[in-house]
Parts: sequence; structure tokens; C-alpha cells
Amino acid sequence: MRRRPTGGRVPHPRLTLAIAVLEAIATLAFAISGFIEARKNRLDSVGTFVVALATAFGGGTLRDILLERRPFYWVVHDDYVIAIFVLALFAPFVLRMLSRLSAERLLLIADAIGLGIFSISGTSIALDAEMPRFIAVMMGVITGVVGGIIRDVLCNDIPLILRDSRPYATCAFVGCWFYLLLVWLQFDSVYSVLLATGFILAARLATFKFDVRLPH
Amino acid sequence: MRRRPTGGRVPHPRLTLAIAVLEAIATLAFAISGFIEARKNRLDSVGTFVVALATAFGGGTLRDILLERRPFYWVVHDDYVIAIFVLALFAPFVLRMLSRLSAERLLLIADAIGLGIFSISGTSIALDAEMPRFIAVMMGVITGVVGGIIRDVLCNDIPLILRDSRPYATCAFVGCWFYLLLVWLQFDSVYSVLLATGFILAARLATFKFDVRLPH
Amino acid sequence: MRRRPTGGRVPHPRLTLAIAVLEAIATLAFAISGFIEARKNRLDSVGTFVVALATAFGGGTLRDILLERRPFYWVVHDDYVIAIFVLALFAPFVLRMLSRLSAERLLLIADAIGLGIFSISGTSIALDAEMPRFIAVMMGVITGVVGGIIRDVLCNDIPLILRDSRPYATCAFVGCWFYLLLVWLQFDSVYSVLLATGFILAARLATFKFDVRLPH
Repeated sequence: MRRRPTGGRVPHPRLTLAIAVLEAIATLAFAISGFIEARKNRLDSVGTFVVALATAFGGGTLRDILLERRPFYWVVHDDYVIAIFVLALFAPFVLRMLSRLSAERLLLIADAIGLGIFSISGTSIALDAEMPRFIAVMMGVITGVVGGIIRDVLCNDIPLILRDSRPYATCAFVGCWFYLLLVWLQFDSVYSVLLATGFILAARLATFKFDVRLPH
Repeated sequence: MRRRPTGGRVPHPRLTLAIAVLEAIATLAFAISGFIEARKNRLDSVGTFVVALATAFGGGTLRDILLERRPFYWVVHDDYVIAIFVLALFAPFVLRMLSRLSAERLLLIADAIGLGIFSISGTSIALDAEMPRFIAVMMGVITGVVGGIIRDVLCNDIPLILRDSRPYATCAFVGCWFYLLLVWLQFDSVYSVLLATGFILAARLATFKFDVRLPH
Repeated sequence: MRRRPTGGRVPHPRLTLAIAVLEAIATLAFAISGFIEARKNRLDSVGTFVVALATAFGGGTLRDILLERRPFYWVVHDDYVIAIFVLALFAPFVLRMLSRLSAERLLLIADAIGLGIFSISGTSIALDAEMPRFIAVMMGVITGVVGGIIRDVLCNDIPLILRDSRPYATCAFVGCWFYLLLVWLQFDSVYSVLLATGFILAARLATFKFDVRLPH
């Protein structure tokens, strides 16, 4: 498998590790959001697995196709694919364990975690590939948003990005610019990623808490 | 056009031929399923052609993008594209010829043939590209399932994979593992493909015959 | 970034310029059609931006993935992405300026402009990549049609290609063959592009004017 030579910004090993850990968390969060949607639609285990897989890896795969990065994340981490498969078999139990929260609320939180992490990791990877700034931000937003859109389209549901009148892509968009600001200030790379990810998550959750709605 | 050097498992010329013949059959079967859906939606000839084309080549194209295989199947076999175009012009007659069966039943059978063949050929090609086993199975399921999903999304219909409460992706999934078992047993490669393809087709048709439904 | 060596037909610099100018116009037209759909769905500014972006660049990006052309149009022309972003912020004003026409009529015209230009530029680029003729025409139709389909799927609307009983893909299809005829006659390359683009636009608008409907 061919690997792209790394661009101008050499990624730091600690940064690479931090992004890997965060992506594992985001993958799990998006997979869970896939379980919830699949259950609403009464899919069987394999159907649940397919939806969870598409949600968890859809955004990152599109990003990698656009940036010509190979091998794909899920080809390297096939253990994650197997883990999601095992979880899918036990999805009803997994969801029951988590269901002190209502399903809709759990969906929103899991989705927010995935959105935050994938947006920032997408931006970071696009910067490494020497994309212009505005394009890097768009790559981040696409990476964060596409998994959820595929989930909702597969389940024949109106995408959350449209269904929800609270800011969604806007949170990711502002957070990605915040990340670029931290990078430009030469802030420590790992803390930049964590801070910007936390920013998107906090912003998205705050929109529920305070019922923020953007003007049309 | 760049071609990937073949991976560890050297594909046998007889295997390559067998897969080529099966893929021609599957392409036709999926194209016919596209005609049926397009007709339900009262599309004109070119619209019918577009839907049939997307159904017939959608799964294989996504597989080739994911595996970085070029040139695409439909670029090499542009005679198939032309054949589908000619059939699309005569789609009403083609469908009438086939319509001793009801349209819905014909759709299910054509879809099952395409599902079986593309799932196994997808798995086989992914193995040749040295993918890990679980990933190869997922590639097979994706190749088999995506054409039909695109067809149904284009026609604004709920995807068959969701609409049908009988096992769908599950048949493909089990069949692909059955194929891996045969490969692992070093069974003759052509018979492995034929057996596993027949298994998926038989399993899918049996779910109608005996009205098998998976538990949720 | 790797660039494909140019194929048999060496693209003429004047042709390249003409296509670049036309693509800028088509990008704007499709972006405006995205604004209109986004407004119907009462999206916020960033949502509007995402829909406009996917509409404007969706078809060309799929074409470039299929033909392995890099870098993408929107990576090179990131100024266009920024321009669409700025327009999205002022979308209500932009639409009001244009709204001497009704929204539905404006949508149809903007869509027809994008359809015509992207179909011909797609065919032209596929010919440069030495695709067979029929495939080049299909690439053109795909490039012209996909942006609008993504727009409508994102906005949970029935795709215009299905909603509208007047010929849509058919106009693009005939226009692309007309373009191939002009190329075959060795007609001046720039005029060929302009004539064929004008043909599609005129044909599509004529279907409204004279209420042409294809037989089913």
C-alpha cells in the first residue's frame, strides 16, 4: 500500500497517538448512535452492524478518498470492525445498559462526541496533507457530518443536520477555525486537538441546555 | 491505467473467467431489477437507463474505489453499458417477456442473483488485494448490497435491505464466510465461488419460500 | 499531487480557458439552486453553505474520483469555496435580488445552466482521459446530474430528475452526443463546447416553454 509522503507540517508522535485514541472513542460513539437508529427501524443484527459500520467509518472514509490516503482506517484497525460486529450482536443489551438516558438524548450525545472528534481530526489530517486553510476546515466539517448523514439516509430518516433546528454543522465549523487559531499560535499540538474537540462537544451540548436556535 | 500488482493469492485464470461470466449475469440481473423499479416510478428511457446503470455497477464501483482498482469494470466492458442502454430502450418489452412472474417477485429474484454473485466476487477480489479476512467479508457484503441501495434511494423508495423483514445482508454475510471456509480448505477455486454464490442465492430464496424472519 | 499524463487528445489552452470560465458560471448557478432548496428547508447559514457546496462541487468531485484526477477543482479554486461561503451568509439578500422570478422557476433555470455546462465539461474531460465514447457521454451525464441529486437527497426532497416529468437526463444525454459529433467533425473545440452547452440549456428550457413530456 502506497502512503503519501507527509506534507509541510510534520505530525508529532504524541499528536498521532492522541488522535488515534480520540478516533477510537468517536468510532464507538458513532457506532452506538448507529445502534440506536437501527433499533428504531427494527433491523436484524447484520443490518444493525452495517448501519453502525457506515456511521462509524463513513466520514473518515470519504475524507481519505478525497485526500487519497490509504490504507483506510478500518482496514488497518480491523479489530475495531470486529468489535462493532460483536457489539451489534449484543446491541439490545448494550443499549439497555446505557439506557438510563432516553434513546433520543443518548443519540444526541453520542452524535456530538463523534462530531467533535472527527471534525478536528479531519482538519488536522487535511492540514498535514497541505490543504489550504479554508479547505482543511471544510474537510473537517465533512468528516464530522457525513457519518451521521449516511446513518440517517440508510435508515430513511431525515438527517439530524436538517431535523434539528439547533446549530449543528455551525458548531463543527467554528470549532475547526478555533483549532486553526491554536495551530497558528503554535500552541501545543495535543492540547490544541483536545481543546478544540472539547469546544465543539461543549458548544453542541450547550445548544440543547440553553435551547439555542440559529436565525434563518 | 495503473494496475495493482496482485497480492499473495495469485488468481487462477479459470477463476478469473468464472468470475467474469458470473459478473455478466449479475450485471444483467441487477439491471433488470433497475428496470422494474424505474418502471414503478414511470421514468423515461434515459432515466431508466441511469437507474439500471447505477444498480448494475454501483456496488462494484464502490468496491474498486475502496480497493484502488482501476480501470473500472464498466470502463473495460463498455459493451455491457451499451447493452443496458439498448435494453433500457426496450425495457417495457423486456419486462413483458419476463412478466409471467409478478413484478415484485421478479425484482426479488433478480436482486438475489445480483446479491449472491457480487458478494462472493467482492470477497474474492478483496482477498486478492490482501485484505484481512473480516474486511474481505465486509467488502463482499458492501459490493453485494450497495447497488440495490443506490437503486432504491434514487427511486425514492425505502431500501429493500430495510423494507424486507427477511434476512438480506445476513445471507450475504454468512455466504461470504462459507466462501472463506472453502478457500481455507483449499477447495477448488472455481467450485468455491460457484458453491458460495449458490448458497447465498438459495438461502435468500429459501427465506421467501419458508417465510423466515430474523428476530429483532 | 500526481497529475495524470494527458491522453491522446491534447486539450487546447483556449479550450481549457473556455471550460474554466463556464465551470465558474455553472458552479455559481448550482450554488444558487442550493441556496433556494436550503431556504425552503429553513436551514441556517452553515447548513445553507454545506448544501450549496455539495450541489456545486458534487458532480465534478465524483467525476474526478472516477477518472482519478487530482487535485480536485475545489482544492485548486478554494477562492470559489470562500465566495460561496460569503454568498451563503447573505443568501436571503442574494435570493431577494434575484427574486423577480419565482423561486421554483429560478431553481429550474439555475439547475439547467449547471446541467448543461457540467455535462459537456464532463464529457470533454473524459475524452481527454481516453475513455471510450459511450463511457465519456455517461461521465458527462453523471457530472451534470449528480450535484442536483445530492442537493435534493440532502434536503430530503424527491430528486428533480424524478420529480419532473419533463426530459432531464435525456437533454444532457442528447447534448453530449451532439458534442461528440462536433468533435468528430473536427469543429473548433471552443465553439463545440459552447454550442453543445447552449443546446442542452435551450433543450431543457424548451421543455418548460412547450411543456414537452416524454412517453413512459
